[in-house]
Amino acid sequence: MAIITLLTDFGVQDEYVGILKGVILGIDPQAVIVDISHGIDAQDIVAAAHTLKASFTYFPEGTIHVAVVDPGVGTRRAIIAAQCDGHRFVAPDNGLLAPILHNGAQVSVYDVKNEKLYQQPVSRTFHGRDIIAPVAGHLSMGHPIQSVGPAVTLDRIAPLEATNPRLISPDEVEGRIIAVDRFGNLITNLDADIVNRLKGEHLSVIVGDHTIHGLAQNYAQCDSNAPLAIWGSRNCIEIAVNRSSAAQALQMTKGNIVRVRSTT
Amino acid sequence: MAIITLLTDFGVQDEYVGILKGVILGIDPQAVIVDISHGIDAQDIVAAAHTLKASFTYFPEGTIHVAVVDPGVGTRRAIIAAQCDGHRFVAPDNGLLAPILHNGAQVSVYDVKNEKLYQQPVSRTFHGRDIIAPVAGHLSMGHPIQSVGPAVTLDRIAPLEATNPRLISPDEVEGRIIAVDRFGNLITNLDADIVNRLKGEHLSVIVGDHTIHGLAQNYAQCDSNAPLAIWGSRNCIEIAVNRSSAAQALQMTKGNIVRVRSTT
Amino acid sequence: MAIITLLTDFGVQDEYVGILKGVILGIDPQAVIVDISHGIDAQDIVAAAHTLKASFTYFPEGTIHVAVVDPGVGTRRAIIAAQCDGHRFVAPDNGLLAPILHNGAQVSVYDVKNEKLYQQPVSRTFHGRDIIAPVAGHLSMGHPIQSVGPAVTLDRIAPLEATNPRLISPDEVEGRIIAVDRFGNLITNLDADIVNRLKGEHLSVIVGDHTIHGLAQNYAQCDSNAPLAIWGSRNCIEIAVNRSSAAQALQMTKGNIVRVRSTT
Repeated sequence: MAIITLLTDFGVQDEYVGILKGVILGIDPQAVIVDISHGIDAQDIVAAAHTLKASFTYFPEGTIHVAVVDPGVGTRRAIIAAQCDGHRFVAPDNGLLAPILHNGAQVSVYDVKNEKLYQQPVSRTFHGRDIIAPVAGHLSMGHPIQSVGPAVTLDRIAPLEATNPRLISPDEVEGRIIAVDRFGNLITNLDADIVNRLKGEHLSVIVGDHTIHGLAQNYAQCDSNAPLAIWGSRNCIEIAVNRSSAAQALQMTKGNIVRVRSTT
Repeated sequence: MAIITLLTDFGVQDEYVGILKGVILGIDPQAVIVDISHGIDAQDIVAAAHTLKASFTYFPEGTIHVAVVDPGVGTRRAIIAAQCDGHRFVAPDNGLLAPILHNGAQVSVYDVKNEKLYQQPVSRTFHGRDIIAPVAGHLSMGHPIQSVGPAVTLDRIAPLEATNPRLISPDEVEGRIIAVDRFGNLITNLDADIVNRLKGEHLSVIVGDHTIHGLAQNYAQCDSNAPLAIWGSRNCIEIAVNRSSAAQALQMTKGNIVRVRSTT
Repeated sequence: MAIITLLTDFGVQDEYVGILKGVILGIDPQAVIVDISHGIDAQDIVAAAHTLKASFTYFPEGTIHVAVVDPGVGTRRAIIAAQCDGHRFVAPDNGLLAPILHNGAQVSVYDVKNEKLYQQPVSRTFHGRDIIAPVAGHLSMGHPIQSVGPAVTLDRIAPLEATNPRLISPDEVEGRIIAVDRFGNLITNLDADIVNRLKGEHLSVIVGDHTIHGLAQNYAQCDSNAPLAIWGSRNCIEIAVNRSSAAQALQMTKGNIVRVRSTT
């Protein structure tokens, strides 16, 4: 019995997510299907990549992760299945899996060309239903990943077209807000790897006109209207306002720049 | 172990969907419950009917489909259980199941009057919880559908009060936008059955002031701002804009008329 | 095999709910996880308390209910596990469970201090993931609730800071709208216990400028534009407009006062 997670930009208004589940259960009636999110902004491959990378390790090894954010559906972009860190993945080859696979261990990637695993007929508008979900169902049933199609070397998969955080000077790193969560917390791509490269010990976080001195230990540490910076649930710098929305208070949104400066 | 799907207009803010699941699991703890959608517009029986018809065949035979869009709750409208195409259904008798049952094979319908299958006391506001979910749970446990109540002939169930597509002339069919999905794609009720009745080979799709010549093979075939028409995931004509929203670009919405014209 | 319900204010846009499920399934792969709702307004402990109290009895005995509305995350507020009415609960000690535990039978409460049950490292921003979900997973695996930490007497748990309905005179009770559901129905905290204390037989419901005479038997009983009052699905007085939204028609929202008057 395998766990299969779903991450899409389908929303939950339409029948698309239910159909994915029907197709999977038609192949493996024992599969345990878990939604990670279907609220990825439409066609936002970068957000999907960040969300999946932040989530998959909380599932047990052996889990199969299905990710469908697929603006190129019906074109020649490939669909790939991959093994990495003891987990399996099926997704379009559009960069969505790139951050996981490039940072993972024991990685193998396959081009899903074995049409016997597809649900026929294959439409030109919904490969999640016709290819990705059926392949996940077959993997869940024990089908070996090697037979979904030819192996692909890691340097041949599509890269994620995203702006990485960077060291501007020995005392400053620059990143971006990559997500605003339901609480209005501003989640950045500044993780410990990059922040630890700063020389100084005392950190300030700059977002728009605001400079936040020091990192908080919890959300409740600051006055209710003052923004705070904290190591968030994704292990990245997060900007929050206690019991309120930092996005509204600071008028900041996805894509805005965030800097961390250090002094000794 | 049966699969039970849920389709409602309850939304996911309130506790109503969770309660349906609790009631079902209280009767059949092994049931595998799958959400098709809870985002049907409030009391939109027509949208629910189209969504269920577009979805149920993707689930394995033997699946029990629970549909609760029930503006008549507490009145004398019946609740029906049906068997059709190897699937089972439980829903209010308000037209929701009519398109499936009238187009299906091996159809039998029953009036759910066996109060032993209800959860007592029966409220006047939530028959989904008190009647429909418990009946689905009992069917899932192996209770024979014949004993939910007296058989009903197909001509006695409530019709769906919807406008069907129609042939206006040998070279023109008229339908409607019946759904706008999360991507802003405009989904019509023009399926192959009606479109194939056109005499000419070359098709144009007319929506508002826009005439789209020919059908696209995939979403990426057109310029990013030009609307395209395509056979969509429901096997009906769909109007889309590549990587954008046709609903916004064309200012079209549910209920608007769409025509297909043919020339030789 | 236990059922574990989830009730949070996380929404379904972000990955947080999926992560809770991954953590639980990593401990008990057989757990059946059911969402009650993730649409509680951010940090609205009162709404979560009402929703859980209105829902949990529809699940079979033995169910474990996980509730995470936790504005105090990272501070010294405790996390409690409780047994009550044959159900189990894990939640922050912030009043969320108080109405259930104070009204329940066979109640025992424990302070979740056994760090062996936590998922390490424990963050300061996401105890749902690091403490509450793992404890639920261990309970589901058969871990005895007594060993999650020291017993707590019921008078020591945090109260729910909510305004209860009250008898103003022998002929009038005053309550509040505590929820507006997806249909625009106004759900009050006026239950039979308080309404039955009125002396007179004939009831009127007053909300804003509107006085509704008598209680309806079903939603369809009134003209489509007239507001009606009815015993709703939560067994409390509910104000509705047939096939429309009472919230919009009456311009009423959560927190507004509702009175019931009686005459003989």
